[in-house]
Amino acid sequence: MFHLRATVFQTPSRSTFDHLDDVVISVEDGTIAAIVPAGDFDEAVDVTLDENTVLIPGLIDLHIHAPQWPQLGTGYDVPLDEWLFEYTFPTEAKCADTTYAQEVWDSMVPSLLANGTTTAVYYGSIHVDATTALAQTCIRHGQRAWVGRTAMDHPEGTPDYYRDTTAAEGLAASRASIDAIVALEDPHALVQPIITPRFIPACTDELLTGLGQLAAETGHLVQTHCSENDWEHGYVLERHGTSDTNSLDGFGLLRDSTVLAHGCLLSDDDFAVIAERGAGVAHCPLSNVYFGDAVFPTRRALDAGVKVGLGTDIAGGPSASLLANAARAVDVSRHLENGVDQRAEADVRGVDESRIDATTAFYLATLGGADVLGEPLGLLEPGRRFDAVAISLSDIDTVPGGDTIDRRFEKLVRLAGRRDIGAVWVHGRQVR
Amino acid sequence: MFHLRATVFQTPSRSTFDHLDDVVISVEDGTIAAIVPAGDFDEAVDVTLDENTVLIPGLIDLHIHAPQWPQLGTGYDVPLDEWLFEYTFPTEAKCADTTYAQEVWDSMVPSLLANGTTTAVYYGSIHVDATTALAQTCIRHGQRAWVGRTAMDHPEGTPDYYRDTTAAEGLAASRASIDAIVALEDPHALVQPIITPRFIPACTDELLTGLGQLAAETGHLVQTHCSENDWEHGYVLERHGTSDTNSLDGFGLLRDSTVLAHGCLLSDDDFAVIAERGAGVAHCPLSNVYFGDAVFPTRRALDAGVKVGLGTDIAGGPSASLLANAARAVDVSRHLENGVDQRAEADVRGVDESRIDATTAFYLATLGGADVLGEPLGLLEPGRRFDAVAISLSDIDTVPGGDTIDRRFEKLVRLAGRRDIGAVWVHGRQVR
Repeated sequence: MFHLRATVFQTPSRSTFDHLDDVVISVEDGTIAAIVPAGDFDEAVDVTLDENTVLIPGLIDLHIHAPQWPQLGTGYDVPLDEWLFEYTFPTEAKCADTTYAQEVWDSMVPSLLANGTTTAVYYGSIHVDATTALAQTCIRHGQRAWVGRTAMDHPEGTPDYYRDTTAAEGLAASRASIDAIVALEDPHALVQPIITPRFIPACTDELLTGLGQLAAETGHLVQTHCSENDWEHGYVLERHGTSDTNSLDGFGLLRDSTVLAHGCLLSDDDFAVIAERGAGVAHCPLSNVYFGDAVFPTRRALDAGVKVGLGTDIAGGPSASLLANAARAVDVSRHLENGVDQRAEADVRGVDESRIDATTAFYLATLGGADVLGEPLGLLEPGRRFDAVAISLSDIDTVPGGDTIDRRFEKLVRLAGRRDIGAVWVHGRQVR
Repeated sequence: MFHLRATVFQTPSRSTFDHLDDVVISVEDGTIAAIVPAGDFDEAVDVTLDENTVLIPGLIDLHIHAPQWPQLGTGYDVPLDEWLFEYTFPTEAKCADTTYAQEVWDSMVPSLLANGTTTAVYYGSIHVDATTALAQTCIRHGQRAWVGRTAMDHPEGTPDYYRDTTAAEGLAASRASIDAIVALEDPHALVQPIITPRFIPACTDELLTGLGQLAAETGHLVQTHCSENDWEHGYVLERHGTSDTNSLDGFGLLRDSTVLAHGCLLSDDDFAVIAERGAGVAHCPLSNVYFGDAVFPTRRALDAGVKVGLGTDIAGGPSASLLANAARAVDVSRHLENGVDQRAEADVRGVDESRIDATTAFYLATLGGADVLGEPLGLLEPGRRFDAVAISLSDIDTVPGGDTIDRRFEKLVRLAGRRDIGAVWVHGRQVR
């Protein structure tokens, strides 16, 4: 049992900012046992945050392509389909060399923790060994993670140097990867496998069918891309005669807590199906700038009962910071509401009632992501895991004498970055 | 004379990235005397940057409302006209207390230098004393600056507690502010006054006329807002029967190097007039997210021969980082090109040929801004001032063994922030 004294900023719902002023959080076996006002706590406290620092729930990044880490921030000059073949597949293919891959993971995982990402949902490469090494790296650095070997066997949607040779081989490799990850020594149960068909254009129907069956058989979560942009959305319409959502559903891949990345082109009908299945969307606003062709309508999705969290989509998105994506989620919702083209009349330029605010964005980065995964994370309350991040407001608060609580929270969402992040805890252990 | 050894990243034109590998820059009296390859330099070097650090030209922030510094990152829930009365005018009015204002300036100026802003174009408050103190603070911290007392006298566009009581009083105060700034002891000539009608909705025709005459008489630069959003643009159309651009031109305020903030609603006809007069636009992409109603068409403006630089628009924009605005200038140009509303057909969703790239964005943040001001800044070459920023690539470059030069530059533009900024020089003096 350890006791930490701090002020907490968090969002128990998409419209509620809550602050727990000067409380003691008691943690046992990685889980919050109690939270009481510091004035009512008589025992010794192990850690006390200074008065310019607040504690927030750990950030949950629902969508990361780990092997793309080296290309972070580069290569946004071509559309998605070309980007994959020109930059991304060659970079990912290097992970055939597990020693190289290990260098990348050891650069990436600590950097993500330093950005406050306590939970990460990773696409690995197609390689079993490199993917197992990624899971092992998360355990070693103490990051909570879902790690998936990327399955991709389509002879047109993938290059010959980087694909599963047949659906059967792809399925066998995905099974082997799950077994290898489950077999890792992981005393705090930080890491789990996740079934990962890259996306429909990269997978044959046979592979998709097999992976759907694997999900039903093992109960492991599923992640994939869904209606990311015009090209991808249109490809599935043409190949399967229906939307991505319906197609994935037909393969048994749209399950409870399936993580669907992007969703920029999802329709209201799609939202209804996704909500019905209990799947969720990883909204990746920074990536969508370059590859999404439209802004994901976050507010419409939430109003339709769809679970939504956030993803950096490293390296489709140029930043490793989930907080930067939270701030950006607000911004792109404003672009959607206002429109962008000055030549259109104001009343038809944008889409009314699209905006979200900083409270909703913070919710997406924490509790929203936890709800997508169906895990007791994202909020500091008894019964949930103690995954948390200390953030200094010293450089953010520009008011002589200090600002109000509500405005400090808004500043945190819009302005805090790696520079302001101090200690990080995952499952009750300080990992940074 | 001092000599600095470094590798330089810069953009001599909007489409050219140039790197000077391992050169020695010799500086005399604040101006670059020579740049030679380090191998050809025989004298002792005063400063050598480490190999993971590059030198860039100092960043030029063309649009900052200094008295709004305390509200940075907050209050984006209402449109511009309400925001001014609800949050901004009350905050600015506090600068009647010069002691309070001095606290704000001493928080802001060092923070902007820490963000790499070596040149700042400031709106002060309406108060002569607070505005003089701002100019003095820039001199003391060593920041190059244009500092303007904000003139605003319109009984409807301003609140009774924060306005120039009459046009004559406003004009007299602007004259007094110019005189006070010019009289400051400023051995390196870092700071100059700038004539600052807030914007047409806040000024009577009499005040605008007087300030236009003052500009002609003194030759000092002018700054104002122009066609920022639907409300402001529409207001001028209704009051003066023509566009902001033409109206300002009629008052003699559209002069060589006049800084026009925002311009989201500028038409091609406006662009032609602005280019003809030699005025320029301070593009403020982060502010425009909340208040612009549309994306400034940067590429169209540049193609029309308009000079364009960047502004943070503190606190209309939530960030003090001009580099963040450079990265965002790329992003919003992509939103404009792609469109935002998924319900529109792809071929009519956005505006073709709107995108700019990281090279153009960096140009806007440096040489573009210098060209707007008509000053020998923004590029490290003999004859220009030595205003420069050292940026560490250690945390940015994610490639084991290091990335290519071109990609390191792209990563710098998209990802570098205050955390990565080391030493800063203005006019040859290290100020940080």
